[in-house]
This record gives sequence, structure tokens and C-alpha cells, in this order.
Amino acid sequence: MTQTQNTQTTNIRRNVPVDEQLEILRRGVVDLVSEDDLRRKLERGAPLRVKLGADPTRPDLHLGHAVILRKMRQFQDLGHKVIMLIGDFTAMIGDPSGKSKTRPPLTLEQTRENAKSYLEQCRLILRQEPEVLEIRYNGEWLEPMGYADVIRLASRYTVARIMERDDFRKRFEGGVPIAMHELLYPLTQGYDSVALEADVELGGTDQLFNNLVGRALQRDYGQEPQVVITLPLLVGLDGTEKMSKSLDNYIGLTDEPHAMFAGLMKVPDPLLDNYFTLLTDLPRERIEALLAGHPVAAHRELAREVVASLHPGADLDAAQERFRSVARGGIPENIPTVSVPAAELDNSVDTQRISMAKLVVLAGLEPSNGAARKLIQNRGLRVGGETYSDPQGSVPRSDLTREGGVVLQKGKDKFVRVVLGD
Amino acid sequence: MTQTQNTQTTNIRRNVPVDEQLEILRRGVVDLVSEDDLRRKLERGAPLRVKLGADPTRPDLHLGHAVILRKMRQFQDLGHKVIMLIGDFTAMIGDPSGKSKTRPPLTLEQTRENAKSYLEQCRLILRQEPEVLEIRYNGEWLEPMGYADVIRLASRYTVARIMERDDFRKRFEGGVPIAMHELLYPLTQGYDSVALEADVELGGTDQLFNNLVGRALQRDYGQEPQVVITLPLLVGLDGTEKMSKSLDNYIGLTDEPHAMFAGLMKVPDPLLDNYFTLLTDLPRERIEALLAGHPVAAHRELAREVVASLHPGADLDAAQERFRSVARGGIPENIPTVSVPAAELDNSVDTQRISMAKLVVLAGLEPSNGAARKLIQNRGLRVGGETYSDPQGSVPRSDLTREGGVVLQKGKDKFVRVVLGD
Repeated sequence: MTQTQNTQTTNIRRNVPVDEQLEILRRGVVDLVSEDDLRRKLERGAPLRVKLGADPTRPDLHLGHAVILRKMRQFQDLGHKVIMLIGDFTAMIGDPSGKSKTRPPLTLEQTRENAKSYLEQCRLILRQEPEVLEIRYNGEWLEPMGYADVIRLASRYTVARIMERDDFRKRFEGGVPIAMHELLYPLTQGYDSVALEADVELGGTDQLFNNLVGRALQRDYGQEPQVVITLPLLVGLDGTEKMSKSLDNYIGLTDEPHAMFAGLMKVPDPLLDNYFTLLTDLPRERIEALLAGHPVAAHRELAREVVASLHPGADLDAAQERFRSVARGGIPENIPTVSVPAAELDNSVDTQRISMAKLVVLAGLEPSNGAARKLIQNRGLRVGGETYSDPQGSVPRSDLTREGGVVLQKGKDKFVRVVLGD
Repeated sequence: MTQTQNTQTTNIRRNVPVDEQLEILRRGVVDLVSEDDLRRKLERGAPLRVKLGADPTRPDLHLGHAVILRKMRQFQDLGHKVIMLIGDFTAMIGDPSGKSKTRPPLTLEQTRENAKSYLEQCRLILRQEPEVLEIRYNGEWLEPMGYADVIRLASRYTVARIMERDDFRKRFEGGVPIAMHELLYPLTQGYDSVALEADVELGGTDQLFNNLVGRALQRDYGQEPQVVITLPLLVGLDGTEKMSKSLDNYIGLTDEPHAMFAGLMKVPDPLLDNYFTLLTDLPRERIEALLAGHPVAAHRELAREVVASLHPGADLDAAQERFRSVARGGIPENIPTVSVPAAELDNSVDTQRISMAKLVVLAGLEPSNGAARKLIQNRGLRVGGETYSDPQGSVPRSDLTREGGVVLQKGKDKFVRVVLGD
């Protein structure tokens, strides 16, 4: 994982006219509750406090997260203060009923570790100047809360309003159990906004309800209600599901330039507009022009823009060239080389051959012979640019000793050169 | 308020055969969840822990409360330990939303005061030996609970099960707001049973749901679930509504013998069976015989039984005689005498007369002239055994100076003799 730090070459622009700020901040947004409130807050001229709740249970970020982080960055660039709220306390509690897989309870150590990794990845997008970045942990106010405080908090909200949340209502009506504590989490999340005196809260569209609870609670606690802004959930490379690691349709935030470039070249055409809008700063007219042109050119521009913003200083031409060469079935330059110990062949029955499955394992492309054979069966392995289809096949010793050895390719962009060592 | 202490003349009976215990404990009960569980617990021979939640927001007890306290006493008489649980912590929180009139938040002082008065009144029925009486306060385990503990507790129960409670369901379906914290109270009450390791919980039929939550939570915490016993809500003297102070259809637990006697003589005939079953130990055959006989004789026996049990050593014959005499329009012996200062007449326009309304106020029967006139208008005042019907009427000085003065009677059994003082 390479973590190139964002160079923050641009300056913070202060006192940008409100209309211009709104223009920037509205881009790509789904919900904005409400624009009038946001305008009023901006008109005051003081930096806004912009909250983003970070879930320290899932440490690996991808471009889906970048959509919201980029919006946070836009606030920073306009001089507003971004508050990264780490839900350390709630993560440690998790789902005590053990029924929810999305909320496994974590130890304090895991939480801290994950939070650290999360914030590290955010550096790729967020400015780090203290006047525009504040990092907080909700244990700060949740840990000292007692039973009476929870009762008082709960008294501020009605069951009917909580049950308006789509998934709660559907589960309730469908007879799917909702544990009582699940109802308390939106309140807790809302209370975080009270504790932080947030002016704005950002989130995915799936967070609209929870963040509106914060808005309501703030009003109830005598604060000015926060503006709630939601951004779309980025659809992944499969073109249908939201980007997520578990669906393997993602591009990691810390992927290396060439991998990120290759990933972006595979974005389904219908999603191009979305990706341009949410992941680049290209003006609308430019996006329209690109969409009207050849898709490959559009993809290339998307890839260059996104890679450049996450990897400032990366060699875009090299990444592009590598992609082109791989796409044509070529082998990119500078691929890793693995030496297979000569003993592997010397001690085997046929000292002149090695099974392809074993070679794949020794090359580090699969963890076991079984997995390697499966890869071959599924036509996921190429050798010298050709699909290799015999799971029981083997490679002669001479291939490994020749100049350049054997180049194995797993999937579209994973290459390893295998040679015979001592 | 006279608080005659229960003399506890009977001995605790230990090792009573289980069938006999069940026979006693089943009397008058509405719900018993479950009899099998209760039998199993009794068969072990060890004293059971029998919980009753006491609400320290309403300090004045009446015969409706006696129904449950008598059942607790039956457990004590069989050697079981009664646990009076004072909800001091929950009373102090009350209803923070301020919407519920039944849960006004109390100060620590009020809570302690009310609890003291409550327990004082319970002495009229409950045995005080420490081996059969334990007094606990739920602040003991609720006060140290933190946010995480509340989440863990809440995770043990589902929204659907909580919403099964009749009033919750009706309010939810009817669009009547339920504040979130209201859902937490049944869980808290249930957790009290876990903390106390209760074997049995008693309550009115309106507490069935809450007490079953305790049963479920205990199971979830790895304890043997408590047996839930409910007793009927006693119908008051109006014959329709449950006995309650606010409906003025009640007989106070600490009413003096003659007042309690008179109250019981007014129990509507259809409720006699109920009152006998729930408030006396008379065997079934005896009750049947009384119900088959003359209602006045039945009432008299009821009154004597109940007064004797709450006021051991009271002169039952005197109470009965007083009631008889009042019923015939007579004036009981030993009624309080109030001296009206002579100046009240000397300084008025007509020094030879005093208005009846003023006399009623001076006698302490009403707080103001207006209230006194209203009492007269409503035909609630008798003078010398006759209804007095003129709100503007007056009494001559001579009546007050004559032997015996003027006897005012408010309602059926409140008498004051008024004479002229110096």
C-alpha cells in the first residue's frame, strides 16, 4: 500500500462569494436540507463546522469513500473546518446481540488501529492544516454518559419518527426482528452533532435519515439545526452494485497509479458521467464534450484526472502506456520477478518439469495448488499473453532458465515473471 | 393519619406442603405464569425471593394496594422473602419529556420522603422480620450503568416484543406519540428482576407485560425466569372504576377504623365477593354463605374482617355502632368540637347571626366560603341530621351557645360540633 500524501498545493480561498460557494458545494449532491439554511450559514462569513462520521470498523477505503471526502475537501478549500468524527465508542460496543455482521464489536486497540489507518488514507484527499481539520472521538462524550443521560436523550425523540427510517419500517412490518439498541444508534449519532455543534453533516444517501435525526436533536437542544448533505453511493465496476470491497467491484483509495488507472479504464460507459461529476473537478462543459466523444478517450481522461488527484506527481503517461500495452495482450515493463528454488524441481519425480499449479503458488498468485487449479479452470491465468487452460499442465525446466523466464498473468493486470533460482 | 402497626401475631409457617402453599397463593390471582414453574420453585424448599416494585411517586396507599400487599404477606407467612423494590432512580428521572403526568420527575428528597411514607404504610400489612423482608432501591444498579451498559441491555430485547404491549401498540397505530425513553422503562424494570434474582414478581394486571419482560430478560441473562403473578385492580366504591385517590372512590389504607368501616359498608353488592376474596382470609364456603344471606350482614362481616386486619385491636363494636347510628341519621359519640371565636360575631354587621357558609369554613370542613356554598348547593351538608339547603342561610348566636352547640355533617361520616368560644 503506497500512501502518497496529498500535496495541498492549492491555497485555501477565504471569503468566496456565497453564490460561488453554493455552486461548488451543490455539485453531485443528492439531498441538501436545506439550501436556504446553508446559504444563511454561509452568509455569516464564519467558517462552518462540517462533520463526517467515520466508521472505524472498515479500514480499507475506496473511490466510493472518495466521493464524500472530496466534498469535505471542497469545504476545506473554501476555508471551512472539517470534523472527522471517529465512532470509537460505538465501534467498541458494536452489536452486543451479535446478530449484525456490520457491527462486530472491536477492542479498543482494533478501533485505534483502524482509525489511524482510516485517517492516514484520508490524507490522500483532505487538507491537514489544523484550521480546516479537526479529529474527534465520540467516546469523549459517550463514555461519561450514564443511564439517566441516555433516558434524557431518548426522551427527545419519538418511536414513530425513528420507525420512519426505511429499513426499520420494512423490518418491523415484515416481522424481521429489530433489537432495541438499534433504535438508539441513530439517536447517538444525532447526539454527536449536538456535542460537536456541527453546522453541516455529510454522508451517503443511506445516511440521510440518521443525519436528519441530528438536525432534529440540535433544534431540540437549542442549537441551530445542521444542514444535511448527502452524496450518491458510487456504483462499482460491475455497473450495478454500490462499490464495496466485499463485492470486489472497487478501486482502492491507495491502489498504485497503474492499478488505479487500469481500474478506471474499466468503468462501464453509463457510469462515466457520474464518475466525472463525483471524482473530478472538470467543469460541466468539458464533461459533456468528453461524453459526446469516444468512450476510450473519456475513460483515459477520467483515469488521468483521478490518478493525478490521488497520486500527485505520478507518471500518468507511464500508467497509460502500461495499460495500453496490457490491453493489447502485451507485458508491461518493470514487473516483479520471483525466483523458484532449483530444489523444487531437483527433488521432484520429474526433475525436468514443474506443475503449472505449483508455479502459480510459488509465484505468490494463489495460496494453494487447489486455488491455482481453480484459477486455471476459470480461465483466469495467462502465460506469455495466452490463456492457459490445462489445470494439470506443467512447465519444462528450460522455460524457467531461458532469458526472461515465464511471465504469468492473473486477471487483467497482475503480472509476475518466474525464473529458476539456485 | 393513624398508623397502627401490624402486630404480626401469627408465626411464620415453614415447610408447608407445596399443594397447600399453591392453594393459598393462587387465591384471587388473575395471571400465574406459570404454575408449573412456581411448583418447581416451591418444591426445592428454599425460601423464594418475591419482588414488588414500589412507585415512590404516589405516597398514599388504599385498599387497592392492599390486595397485592396481602399476597406478599401470604408469601411471608409461608417463610418466603419479600423484596420491596423502590424505584428511586427511575422516579428521579421521571419523564424528561414532561409529557407524561404519571411520571413527574422528583427530587432525591421527595423520592426518599415518599418511599419512607410508602414503606410506613406497608407495615400495616407486611411482616417486618428481616428474614422475610428486604428493601432495595434500584439506584443501586442503575446509577452505575453507563451508555454501553444501556446499549447491551437494550440489545437483549426486540422492538416488536416491546411494541406488543397493549398501550404502546394502540398509541403507535393511533399515531399518538411514544417517546423513545418510554420503551426503555419496561427493560429497566425487567433488569431490576435480573439484579435482584427474583423468583416471583407480583403486580396488578396492568403490570403483566412489564413483568413478563423481566421473565424474558432473566432467561437471557442465564437466570431461572421469574414467576409472574398478577392480581386484579380493585374496583372502587363507585362500582365501576378501579380504586384510585383521584377518582375519590377509595378507602385509604391508613383511614381510621370507623371511617374504614363506614367505607366498607358502602361497597356495591356485586363487588362483595371480590372484596372478600381479595381483602380477607375467609374460606370460600364462608364467603358463599355470607353472599347467600342478607347483604348488610355480609357488609358488616367484610368491614369487621378488613378493619381488624389493618387495625388489630381496634374496637370493632364501637366502629359498627357508630356506623349504625350515623346511618339512622344519628350523631356519633366522640366527634371533634371546634370553638368559633366570639369576635367573629361581635365584629360583624348582625352580631346575633353568622352565615352558615362561614361556619362551615371555620369548622374546617371547606377551605372557602365559595366552596362551602357549593357544598350546601350540592346538598352535601347536614345540620342536626337534616339536609341544609340554603347557601345564603345563617345560624343564630343562640344555637352556638346552647348545650351541644351546632353539629355539622359533611358527606356521610364527617362530623364537627361547633360552639361559641371566647
